[in-house]
Amino acid sequence: MTILSIPRRGFMLCLSSPSGAGKTSICSRVLDLDPQTTLSVSVTTRPMRPGEVDGEDYFFVSSDKYKEMVANGDLLEHATVFNHGYGTPKDFVFDSLSMGKDVLFDIDWQGTQQLSQLARTDLVSIFILPPTTQVLEQRLRTRAQDPEEVIQLRMSEANQEISHWAEYDYVIVNNSLEHSVAQARSIITAERLRRTRQIGLTHFVNGLRGIE
Amino acid sequence: MTILSIPRRGFMLCLSSPSGAGKTSICSRVLDLDPQTTLSVSVTTRPMRPGEVDGEDYFFVSSDKYKEMVANGDLLEHATVFNHGYGTPKDFVFDSLSMGKDVLFDIDWQGTQQLSQLARTDLVSIFILPPTTQVLEQRLRTRAQDPEEVIQLRMSEANQEISHWAEYDYVIVNNSLEHSVAQARSIITAERLRRTRQIGLTHFVNGLRGIE
Repeated sequence: MTILSIPRRGFMLCLSSPSGAGKTSICSRVLDLDPQTTLSVSVTTRPMRPGEVDGEDYFFVSSDKYKEMVANGDLLEHATVFNHGYGTPKDFVFDSLSMGKDVLFDIDWQGTQQLSQLARTDLVSIFILPPTTQVLEQRLRTRAQDPEEVIQLRMSEANQEISHWAEYDYVIVNNSLEHSVAQARSIITAERLRRTRQIGLTHFVNGLRGIE
Repeated sequence: MTILSIPRRGFMLCLSSPSGAGKTSICSRVLDLDPQTTLSVSVTTRPMRPGEVDGEDYFFVSSDKYKEMVANGDLLEHATVFNHGYGTPKDFVFDSLSMGKDVLFDIDWQGTQQLSQLARTDLVSIFILPPTTQVLEQRLRTRAQDPEEVIQLRMSEANQEISHWAEYDYVIVNNSLEHSVAQARSIITAERLRRTRQIGLTHFVNGLRGIE
């Protein structure tokens, strides 16, 4: 057995932040740079926004289909935000973990709490904070398609989301995208090196010690 | 408050491995590359080896002085290995942690266990494994000053040390020094980003949310 083949179990990595603090950019850079990570694509009942792609940003489903998935237990977690349903398809996640892939979740505190109750040992959570309130507001305002009342609602929602920072394992203050991406990647590297995730180690060590 | 000034508490990083698996080289590279880390220098009653420096490799002390330090509670942990006493001076470690420095320990499983019982939340532990038994034996044999019976004793001691791998938080298989150093540094970066170590975050988040 070479060291490269020591089997490991993947983990779920939840990244949460108030909208505008940069978690989606961080996620997308990590996914680009690290082929051992994959994104969990949620289902949602909210309407598609300009530029969004079905099956990439979300699986856009009807309210009836969503209720059916909830009833069948097809969703690992689900939550209602701004009157729309959001949920995580279950099979994709568990299949990825057992193949040693790490699944990234771009979800809010409600989703993270639900995942945490379901699978604490498989879960790693990172909260992304903006460096200042001004930066957060600025970032929210550059989404030109949103009217002022939506921005105000988002600011208040951001404040709510931030109030859950202390439920997370790690906290990154996103002052620079590249620096935050490097920090997220260090967390991923470290979590892979955890003894408990390297499920092939017992076999490997027995080999080293001449015990078969 | 800028993000660079968010106060954090340091942690103790124990690196253990059978002798010859490379932990001393990894430690020394990490210390060179990362100014926020510092090495805990142990006291020992064993004789100085050629090339060793008092106060750098160890503080070399007499058996009487060692017993006095144990009796006074000046040592954070201590253990006897090959009939010689080894111990960690306490004040240096706690002062470093409260200044936000991370203290590296190049110690064996006994020392790690004692530290773990004393200060679980401040402790991070990494076990370094050799990639193969052959590599381990080869590395032990290149220390030219040791006679054959010492090498055999070390091999048996190595096997004993390896048997404690499962008591550690992280495991690194040291196939390449540079790769292992990078992995150790990722673990250090991740551990610094743990919410619980960033003790200034509550104040920072209150500022973000306009609560003072």
